[in-house]
Amino acid sequence: MSAFPLSDLTAGLRIEPGSPVDLAAIETDAAPGFDGNKAAGEKALLALAPELEELQERLFAQGKADGRRSILLVLQGMDTSGKGGTLRSTVGLVDPQGVRITSFKAPTEEERKHDFLWRITKALPPVGLIGVFDRSHYEDVLIARVRALAPPEEIERRYDAINAWEAELADSGVTVIKCMLHISAAEQKKRLLARLDDPTKFWKYNPGDVDEREQWPAYQEAYRIAIERTNTKVAPWHVVPADKKWFRNLAIGSLLLDALRSFDLSWPEADFDVEHEKQRLLDEKPL
Amino acid sequence: MSAFPLSDLTAGLRIEPGSPVDLAAIETDAAPGFDGNKAAGEKALLALAPELEELQERLFAQGKADGRRSILLVLQGMDTSGKGGTLRSTVGLVDPQGVRITSFKAPTEEERKHDFLWRITKALPPVGLIGVFDRSHYEDVLIARVRALAPPEEIERRYDAINAWEAELADSGVTVIKCMLHISAAEQKKRLLARLDDPTKFWKYNPGDVDEREQWPAYQEAYRIAIERTNTKVAPWHVVPADKKWFRNLAIGSLLLDALRSFDLSWPEADFDVEHEKQRLLDEKPL
Repeated sequence: MSAFPLSDLTAGLRIEPGSPVDLAAIETDAAPGFDGNKAAGEKALLALAPELEELQERLFAQGKADGRRSILLVLQGMDTSGKGGTLRSTVGLVDPQGVRITSFKAPTEEERKHDFLWRITKALPPVGLIGVFDRSHYEDVLIARVRALAPPEEIERRYDAINAWEAELADSGVTVIKCMLHISAAEQKKRLLARLDDPTKFWKYNPGDVDEREQWPAYQEAYRIAIERTNTKVAPWHVVPADKKWFRNLAIGSLLLDALRSFDLSWPEADFDVEHEKQRLLDEKPL
Repeated sequence: MSAFPLSDLTAGLRIEPGSPVDLAAIETDAAPGFDGNKAAGEKALLALAPELEELQERLFAQGKADGRRSILLVLQGMDTSGKGGTLRSTVGLVDPQGVRITSFKAPTEEERKHDFLWRITKALPPVGLIGVFDRSHYEDVLIARVRALAPPEEIERRYDAINAWEAELADSGVTVIKCMLHISAAEQKKRLLARLDDPTKFWKYNPGDVDEREQWPAYQEAYRIAIERTNTKVAPWHVVPADKKWFRNLAIGSLLLDALRSFDLSWPEADFDVEHEKQRLLDEKPL
């Protein structure tokens, strides 16, 4: 059991479907729903690990039996917002066999010849697994909008297409957890400069990130519209204050655990005669 | 740095290419190359974690730059030998983004319409990643041989095909680490009975496992032949005593670390002007 009201924390991150979104009003360095400092937050996340691990294993076990559930965690956020760090710190807490991570880059030539949801659909987690998207179909209404990579009417079409697609996912047993890792422009600047100060981080730095940064307000606006247009009851958005890495990790861990708890996962029953099987083993002839 | 001679441990697991293999002579409950008990072995594995993590990140970073290396860890072993447990305890030590795990089941109808290496090739790790095969192309000369799923001449052909394919992998920058997790028949019986005693483990039990168990000597013989026929300098076999789970985990962690160390991985250099980038960020207009 966690030492803080986990569902209060997760509820506080959820954007109410149908309500307007004001990203500027959501503090990026806050820790809503958690009354403690960094050390307490890191400890709280580790305290979730055993339950996360067990429920993930139950989900996996049910996937092997007749279960139909899976989880899709969608991580979106500006460069340096910590999509990778979240994966390492939070998703890394559970058995790697039960997780399928996909990092979406700019679409390939082949992918561009298909509808934008084609490559996304191919990456969906099988039953029993936790799929994680590091970037996602939302890039097709974020960078695509900011950089005009598609005509306006196509961008418009995509919001509805996403809603229909996610509704179908929900119907088929996939719980979609959508998160925007929300950092301030000042925090991003700090993190980019830190990469430039550390030769072991140069590989993470891309001059193009600064070009994107110049479009910061346009991206915030694109996020606002995307969240408002695709914030549905079956697949609601969460805006996760992410300037504090420890809170970001705790928040994502809490969202995962909250979803797993909601499934009320039992261990699958034996589909064989347990006593008969024991006897077979005990009675076997020498090999 | 590890507190035991890591390369002694890994060298002790390697089967000398060209030499005959006598699996019965390799003790399944030994801990060769490690002078300590379970607690010491678990501690030794955790002590490897920081270096494993850092070198895995360097490998990943080089993959993003102009690197060409990747690792393919092939885990084979009888049911209950601990392929899954190894994944959780050892591969779980590194960033899940840098790992790609594939569990091979019986081939699908589509897969059976292709050469046996078709589905295996599709699952190869991209540059910079650690791929892990939980079962592999070796099933096509193990269960396929024991259960006569293919004609004898096709099984014969496969040994050479595997050698040619693995040599090509090695040439292209993939370091292949092949491991047989070696348990005794008595240990398997114990583990199967333990699954039958624990309702949280029923999902891992399959009555078919006992049918396979009845073919234990045939499987050991199939392993012996497979190892002898595909034990090459570029992709040698390791037989890992696996009755002791802690030793099995330490051994696999050591093999991974040994491979990563051999790459002499440096952090990629900046392919941009670091000072210029700093200045761009410091001089930027308000967003």
